Amino acid sequence: MTRHLVSIDDLSLDEIRALFHLADRFAADPRGQRDAARGLIAASLFYEPSTRTRLSFESAMLRLGGGVLTAAEMSSSSAAKGESLADTVRVVGGGYADVIVLRHSSEGAARLAADYSTVPVINAGDGAHEHPTQTLCDLYNLHVERGRIEGLEVVLAGDLKYSRTVHSFAYALARFGANIVCVPQPGFEMPEYVLRRLREEFGVEPLRADTRRLGDLAGETDAMYLTPQKPHQLSLFTDARGWELQRVDALYMTRPQTERFSSGEEASERYMRLERRDMAAESLRDAVVMHPLPRRDEIASDVDEDPRSIYFKQAARGVPIRMALLATLMEQAPGLDSPPVQPESYPVAVGENPCPNPNCISRTEPRHVAPRFVVASRQPVRAHCAYCSRELVFRFVGCSTSRSYHAPEAGALRKVRPDHLVFFEDEGAAGRHEFVPAST
Amino acid sequence: MTRHLVSIDDLSLDEIRALFHLADRFAADPRGQRDAARGLIAASLFYEPSTRTRLSFESAMLRLGGGVLTAAEMSSSSAAKGESLADTVRVVGGGYADVIVLRHSSEGAARLAADYSTVPVINAGDGAHEHPTQTLCDLYNLHVERGRIEGLEVVLAGDLKYSRTVHSFAYALARFGANIVCVPQPGFEMPEYVLRRLREEFGVEPLRADTRRLGDLAGETDAMYLTPQKPHQLSLFTDARGWELQRVDALYMTRPQTERFSSGEEASERYMRLERRDMAAESLRDAVVMHPLPRRDEIASDVDEDPRSIYFKQAARGVPIRMALLATLMEQAPGLDSPPVQPESYPVAVGENPCPNPNCISRTEPRHVAPRFVVASRQPVRAHCAYCSRELVFRFVGCSTSRSYHAPEAGALRKVRPDHLVFFEDEGAAGRHEFVPAST
Amino acid sequence: MTRHLVSIDDLSLDEIRALFHLADRFAADPRGQRDAARGLIAASLFYEPSTRTRLSFESAMLRLGGGVLTAAEMSSSSAAKGESLADTVRVVGGGYADVIVLRHSSEGAARLAADYSTVPVINAGDGAHEHPTQTLCDLYNLHVERGRIEGLEVVLAGDLKYSRTVHSFAYALARFGANIVCVPQPGFEMPEYVLRRLREEFGVEPLRADTRRLGDLAGETDAMYLTPQKPHQLSLFTDARGWELQRVDALYMTRPQTERFSSGEEASERYMRLERRDMAAESLRDAVVMHPLPRRDEIASDVDEDPRSIYFKQAARGVPIRMALLATLMEQAPGLDSPPVQPESYPVAVGENPCPNPNCISRTEPRHVAPRFVVASRQPVRAHCAYCSRELVFRFVGCSTSRSYHAPEAGALRKVRPDHLVFFEDEGAAGRHEFVPAST
Repeated sequence: MTRHLVSIDDLSLDEIRALFHLADRFAADPRGQRDAARGLIAASLFYEPSTRTRLSFESAMLRLGGGVLTAAEMSSSSAAKGESLADTVRVVGGGYADVIVLRHSSEGAARLAADYSTVPVINAGDGAHEHPTQTLCDLYNLHVERGRIEGLEVVLAGDLKYSRTVHSFAYALARFGANIVCVPQPGFEMPEYVLRRLREEFGVEPLRADTRRLGDLAGETDAMYLTPQKPHQLSLFTDARGWELQRVDALYMTRPQTERFSSGEEASERYMRLERRDMAAESLRDAVVMHPLPRRDEIASDVDEDPRSIYFKQAARGVPIRMALLATLMEQAPGLDSPPVQPESYPVAVGENPCPNPNCISRTEPRHVAPRFVVASRQPVRAHCAYCSRELVFRFVGCSTSRSYHAPEAGALRKVRPDHLVFFEDEGAAGRHEFVPAST
Repeated sequence: MTRHLVSIDDLSLDEIRALFHLADRFAADPRGQRDAARGLIAASLFYEPSTRTRLSFESAMLRLGGGVLTAAEMSSSSAAKGESLADTVRVVGGGYADVIVLRHSSEGAARLAADYSTVPVINAGDGAHEHPTQTLCDLYNLHVERGRIEGLEVVLAGDLKYSRTVHSFAYALARFGANIVCVPQPGFEMPEYVLRRLREEFGVEPLRADTRRLGDLAGETDAMYLTPQKPHQLSLFTDARGWELQRVDALYMTRPQTERFSSGEEASERYMRLERRDMAAESLRDAVVMHPLPRRDEIASDVDEDPRSIYFKQAARGVPIRMALLATLMEQAPGLDSPPVQPESYPVAVGENPCPNPNCISRTEPRHVAPRFVVASRQPVRAHCAYCSRELVFRFVGCSTSRSYHAPEAGALRKVRPDHLVFFEDEGAAGRHEFVPAST
Repeated sequence: MTRHLVSIDDLSLDEIRALFHLADRFAADPRGQRDAARGLIAASLFYEPSTRTRLSFESAMLRLGGGVLTAAEMSSSSAAKGESLADTVRVVGGGYADVIVLRHSSEGAARLAADYSTVPVINAGDGAHEHPTQTLCDLYNLHVERGRIEGLEVVLAGDLKYSRTVHSFAYALARFGANIVCVPQPGFEMPEYVLRRLREEFGVEPLRADTRRLGDLAGETDAMYLTPQKPHQLSLFTDARGWELQRVDALYMTRPQTERFSSGEEASERYMRLERRDMAAESLRDAVVMHPLPRRDEIASDVDEDPRSIYFKQAARGVPIRMALLATLMEQAPGLDSPPVQPESYPVAVGENPCPNPNCISRTEPRHVAPRFVVASRQPVRAHCAYCSRELVFRFVGCSTSRSYHAPEAGALRKVRPDHLVFFEDEGAAGRHEFVPAST
């Protein structure tokens, strides 16, 4: 079966570790791999420009000895003649290329592409949704620098609201058993839905955190500590002021995602900035400083010379880890033999597309997209879009066979098969589809 | 002598068949050809974007083990500094690349490029003129799916007025001895000049056709049957309602070429659309459904799953046939040893450029282009532009040695050497160049 | 130590000759080098489009068997997210590529890039500053066509004011001991600062020249003869009308650099144009006609067929000479083992950036750029920007340790260490930094 990388969740921990080991091998002799993918071709389909990401993938493919097809500005070409993403993927994957690297402005685009492609699709960023190879690269850097991920203390600083990179990284850190210290730019805290997923999937409960030992960097911020450890273990460390940050393994800075700011969020305040003097904090003595790049001013240039600054190395390591990914997905190397159990998704049987995200691929390209959903919880019923992962918004849940509907909390819903669930925003919508209130 | 592919007419039937056999071999083992063009380079010079076509050629070159130079948006670069196409071709073909793949917005651009290039030039589309590798790919698909082209019944449906793909395909089908059923979108019938060429070169006479067996798809359309068979054979099939369509080998759908519509043609009516239910027509039982792609809505997405739908395979087969073409033109494979006899062309000796096409390369780039013409008929005299193939418009024909002029029908013109022919739009023009009416 | 090619001055004459010999070898068997750079990658980072230059480099890299990463329109991508050139270079050179080919619109950009890069940086044009591989290619053509450069008579004709190509070529010709005849378009004479450098570094004194033997081409032009020969030798040739041009080895035409014209210079007069009849001049009997291309109308198309016209060959030879450069910089071939002595540069210790060029990289990208200067003369003090080479403009020169300042001619300045020099535009600026006038 063709494997894709749409979300970092598509890889099990064992598979990620296997990629790390392969990347280690490639990094040790980058020129020695030039026959690994000879005769194979990667296509970069970029519907929005991202030169750095594109070059990183293309470098990886060339280092493996493969060929590269580049469409750096797709939106100005075939798309203008009205071609759907599903058709483009079927043509390019049908004979032009052996793997597709896709960047798209709509959330869920990579999932759609994977549904239609017979060759592996790698998500190189789909709107504000996922960018799994950035996460893979970040994790790989921790692996190289620290030798492990479990139990590390990782500070995430800056815009924690809009940075998809940070959200994916946080889920993955939790999955690997690392501890997270959130130090947000005020007003750009980690969103509630991210915290909920951390809690529900990984049992992580947020604690107030005392980050005075970080010095000026943390400032007035409401910091938070997220740990997959058992609560009783934490009671050893916490008091009224919250869990106290001691020693940091990695400080991960992010830029303000101004392109995603809503009007009024125009960085009214000065954005967080890591300066040389901040690096003197005792808590950072052994910390590596990471950044997904590009940076603007959130890391002062005099920090670059500090040996703890690894952000340029971090970017460079994007090549061997992408080499490992490409080689593995194209079945030129073993390692993807323990896939994670993926949540089932179901087509929307009745009514409108329930996804509330106007930038979801299910809305921006309705041709070839049948809306689908994933059930996140049965009691109360909660679900999200199978493409963009946005939580569905509804007030009532029906059953497509009994044609009756309930409040999401109703116990009776537990007996409804998930593929029979129907979501209504109000009673009127339910009525229009001839559903009746469940007898109580 | 360097061979180019400017028009599908540049290849003889034997040469096309040789390309098919080479493509079959390449398709059977696409990764096995990776040394065929090692050390050779193809340059994609695209003066208008066409990602699909570009990627298909580049994939073919990479699969042959060659290198690729990409200029996906030429018009925004050197052209902006005022460089002529002739100069660009001489530089790129002079040492940068071993074959040039050219896409240009002006009709005749590829012919001009071939005139100046010492390496093979492949026309990847010149305005509304020719796109010979699309035709080659279409023919190759018939060869693969049907094992032959001669005698097939091929339905051409949709915009038959503006689609250059369909015109070239029709000429080639006639040349191979296939029969064509035209099922145009009303108002977008096959143009008169295409029918004339089919008649004059291949002896094809259009018959009215009864396409009721195609079902709703044909609708109210005035269908036409074009066959290179002898008329007396046809009388077996035809009655008052016209030749009756029975069994279709291939149904070739085309999209509306809205970018070429004149104002007022804005698809006022609903465009033809192939739906799943249309596929139930008995006449289509063994038909393959083809489309040059990209499609918009002219094939419903539920037709995709029908095993007779081969349009994605059709696109994929563009790679091996282009591999065959590239390998052969670069002389890495035999097969181009029986060139067709090409019509002679002559420079315009007197007066203005007689080509009436404002988008002809002879008008859009007058530097380095001496207008030339090809004589299509001597009695009456008819001629077309040697670059864009547009028929010349004139009312009088002169002889550049006698300095006299005649009506095009004049018998005396038969004795004038073709390179001495001069075309005048009216008597005033003839007079201005000091030509006198022929004595009668 | 990593070698870069930012300016043609970065190569010694011996090194240039070594590149010529390597290029000769590559030109003799271009397909035979396809393993020279296997497994290595070049990145084309083009912040302004220049398809010809880019394709020439990429062809060279592909012919060496290497891979190519292309960012043809950098300015529209990462730069839009606010990434500095220094960061981009560190990322791309950090692991993506083994050599960087940089084109940028700001003068000095390549020097900045080289400061930050751990892999070789090749300047493919930085604004109006340098384009060293064009110069290398021009010199290589003289080497191939004439067998030597020393003592040749080279006519430079056209826009000698704005063409960076011509300035770099003139310096290099002087360095090799060739003689230069300047035949400028009236109003576009060789600038004073170029003549000064020719005089100061190579001892070249301009003489009036009589170019009647060039025929119409020279017209009313004030021609000039620049020769590194001893003045007493010249007295043999010169009389009141100036040195008389006899036999030309190479005629180098340049296009009007209209994109750099100031308003009012709109080519009011007709620009110089080489026509077929000009080639009949006796002085041109053995001359080769060169042009860096693209040309517009400054060479008539009927000159193309003249066997002395080598401009298309000249462009084609850009590939083997760039192959030689790439192979040598990436240490896949010997030859760069006798580097020239480079002038020292010093950071600006006090005050504002003294570079007067608004398009200098030190002004367009102040992050990561500490202004630096090079001392060109001690008596009087003259200096230029270490990035863009523009002469600094100042009225007073201070010493950063004594905090006193002088007129640039002051003898006392000879004792000030160059890294202590401080440049003030006026007394007010000196006062604001608490410098006092030197006691006299």
